[in-house]
Amino acid sequence: MRKVAVVGAGMTRFGKWMDKNLKDLGREAVEAAMKDAGVDKPAIEAAVVGNATAGLITGQEMIKAQVILRDMGFGDIPMINTENACASSSTAFHLAWLYVASGMYDCVLALGVEKLYHEDKTRSFRAIGSAVDLTAIQELMAAAAARGREKAEGGDGGSGAGEKRSMFMDFYAASAREHMKRYGTTAVQFAKVAVKSHKNASLNEYAQYRETYSVEDILNSPMVAEPLTRLMCSPIGDGAAALVLCSEEKARQLTTKPVWVTASILGSGKDRAPGEPGVTTRMAKKAYEMAGVGPDDLDVVELHDASAPAELIEYEELGLCKLGEGGQLIEEGATEIMGRIPVNPSGGLLSKGHPIGATGCAQLTEIVWQLRGECGDRQVKGGNAKVGLTQNGGGMMRGEAAALTVHILER
Amino acid sequence: MRKVAVVGAGMTRFGKWMDKNLKDLGREAVEAAMKDAGVDKPAIEAAVVGNATAGLITGQEMIKAQVILRDMGFGDIPMINTENACASSSTAFHLAWLYVASGMYDCVLALGVEKLYHEDKTRSFRAIGSAVDLTAIQELMAAAAARGREKAEGGDGGSGAGEKRSMFMDFYAASAREHMKRYGTTAVQFAKVAVKSHKNASLNEYAQYRETYSVEDILNSPMVAEPLTRLMCSPIGDGAAALVLCSEEKARQLTTKPVWVTASILGSGKDRAPGEPGVTTRMAKKAYEMAGVGPDDLDVVELHDASAPAELIEYEELGLCKLGEGGQLIEEGATEIMGRIPVNPSGGLLSKGHPIGATGCAQLTEIVWQLRGECGDRQVKGGNAKVGLTQNGGGMMRGEAAALTVHILER
Repeated sequence: MRKVAVVGAGMTRFGKWMDKNLKDLGREAVEAAMKDAGVDKPAIEAAVVGNATAGLITGQEMIKAQVILRDMGFGDIPMINTENACASSSTAFHLAWLYVASGMYDCVLALGVEKLYHEDKTRSFRAIGSAVDLTAIQELMAAAAARGREKAEGGDGGSGAGEKRSMFMDFYAASAREHMKRYGTTAVQFAKVAVKSHKNASLNEYAQYRETYSVEDILNSPMVAEPLTRLMCSPIGDGAAALVLCSEEKARQLTTKPVWVTASILGSGKDRAPGEPGVTTRMAKKAYEMAGVGPDDLDVVELHDASAPAELIEYEELGLCKLGEGGQLIEEGATEIMGRIPVNPSGGLLSKGHPIGATGCAQLTEIVWQLRGECGDRQVKGGNAKVGLTQNGGGMMRGEAAALTVHILER
Repeated sequence: MRKVAVVGAGMTRFGKWMDKNLKDLGREAVEAAMKDAGVDKPAIEAAVVGNATAGLITGQEMIKAQVILRDMGFGDIPMINTENACASSSTAFHLAWLYVASGMYDCVLALGVEKLYHEDKTRSFRAIGSAVDLTAIQELMAAAAARGREKAEGGDGGSGAGEKRSMFMDFYAASAREHMKRYGTTAVQFAKVAVKSHKNASLNEYAQYRETYSVEDILNSPMVAEPLTRLMCSPIGDGAAALVLCSEEKARQLTTKPVWVTASILGSGKDRAPGEPGVTTRMAKKAYEMAGVGPDDLDVVELHDASAPAELIEYEELGLCKLGEGGQLIEEGATEIMGRIPVNPSGGLLSKGHPIGATGCAQLTEIVWQLRGECGDRQVKGGNAKVGLTQNGGGMMRGEAAALTVHILER
């Protein structure tokens, strides 16, 4: 397989954009990425678009890539629509990488885009709720009804609850409590993740929430599901991010700062044997092998902090520290922008925001910018970061992400 | 890029399966394809699933591949969800092919699956209607309203109209009338396409409609949109089809009858210059170049006959005859099972049926079976067919398919 470089990346600011539709958001990110790459439309030979909820939010299904890109004047290039819940656009990036790595095309666009806010908020929550196995939930509810219970656990995506609430948070809260019980991790440590994220986001003009908070602020914000408070949960949002991927030859023509994709791994959850490591651990192992690096080689990480405790657990799963030492890692400040291994310098899902289908490409965009030393006040390693990793999970089935990607990028 | 073989193919019968859900249909096709390939689940290293409407029909979005496949006991393999309207699963096949051709995986599953029938028929029609640019339609309607007209053309997918009716038929009817005007093509010639399709489907145990009809029956069935009668339009339906793709080395171990994928082309529609050939012509040209064959080399074709006139027009676009001679080709019987170049021996979309996201993989399944000489009463070329082609279009934007695939398979 061929070497693949990212030669351009761009994104919209994440936020609540009631006056922008899927086309507006997608176009803005694509134009930014192409400008960054210094390529014009005829150079793009294929496009892969990740989006998770447009079908349920707007009714637009099936040909979202074409709806967004054709009006921009791309020719009759291959356009692929892909979904993998919150990992939709890292899946799109994986496929764009595959097109170039295979030798089929030399220059391919990956786009992640999401318009999650809707005047009817229950619609947003119902859409998010489709990232689980609905038949299984229907079966659970039928079984519960048969047992005479009023309703089963799980359900419709938390419609009617607060804006930052989703059914996923019940799962994250349970795994947080498990971590506390097993390793003595504390709510204060979870809060410190959220403090860091919000501080980082305050330095990122693309972030949805740029306010900073103290540990007390985080702990005192409304409780979503013990021990998760609202400020420990990722919000819903709108946004888009795009990247341009090229063959080595093409990249050398276009830029003096190519960022190489040295691992692109997509996997899915499975029913684990007792004690078997989780899907992040398993996919990270494959990615490290593919890139020929280990966790100690990483200079910067963007990971899927859909909740603050998830970040801490993923430290361990990615091998940034030993099992059970996630709490200690955040206490030490190792994952701060100026720390040993900065994590989520962008602000992450918690604070930069989490427009589902845009998140994967936005994580990759941040790593590209970090490796090029272009991140200003939130720049890690004084601009000398060489190896970055993204971890992006999507959907949920029986306690594992339904889809999970790990990418390693190097300059 | 590596040589890729299809080593197994299987499908459900297409039809109205009110007692089967997406999981049931998907599982049936996957099990059939794996049995045909002689491979067990651990051999499958990745899976790509095409589905177009489950989000709007059932609410299940984002992780349909995982919902169907995980319960079957596949491990934590990459699972990709892809949509491209009626070309969703030929897009899935294209990506499965890319995985193997790239060298990343040796054995990959492609699945197309659709559950289009719903107790509320308007839901089915609304779902089909999302295969167009809804924002553009909203803009058209707003503009029309501003001009004081009651409603604009186009719209909501024909809800309330007969079961076989969809908004696409207006487009197909217009292009049929254009062809009649320009080339003298007749409604009788269109009817002959439908007669052939239904005759072929009567020989296919997987077909949704197995009745045979005379030219008069076809012409006398209810008018949908002049000159299209109901029996000239593809129906809605449920079903699934799956294929197993392998590297050359793996294929040699598994089968003595590998079917090679010698071209896999995906493209999208564009705004054409006057006189510029359509997307089928353009993508077929690329496919012929990739495979190193021409239309004269073809032994069998499965093409996207969403309406009877479309088949006739696609004869010309694929180069099976000259421009304007499609009517003559059907008159001559050249595209009959026993003809010079048999087209849609399966019965095609018209009669085998058209469960949107399953159609692409079903076309490919038919070609695999034809090239292996396993089609019994509907077998072409006495079992000696060597080269087959599929053409599968999806969605519609300004008069061109939004997505279009052409595959060439050879034994």
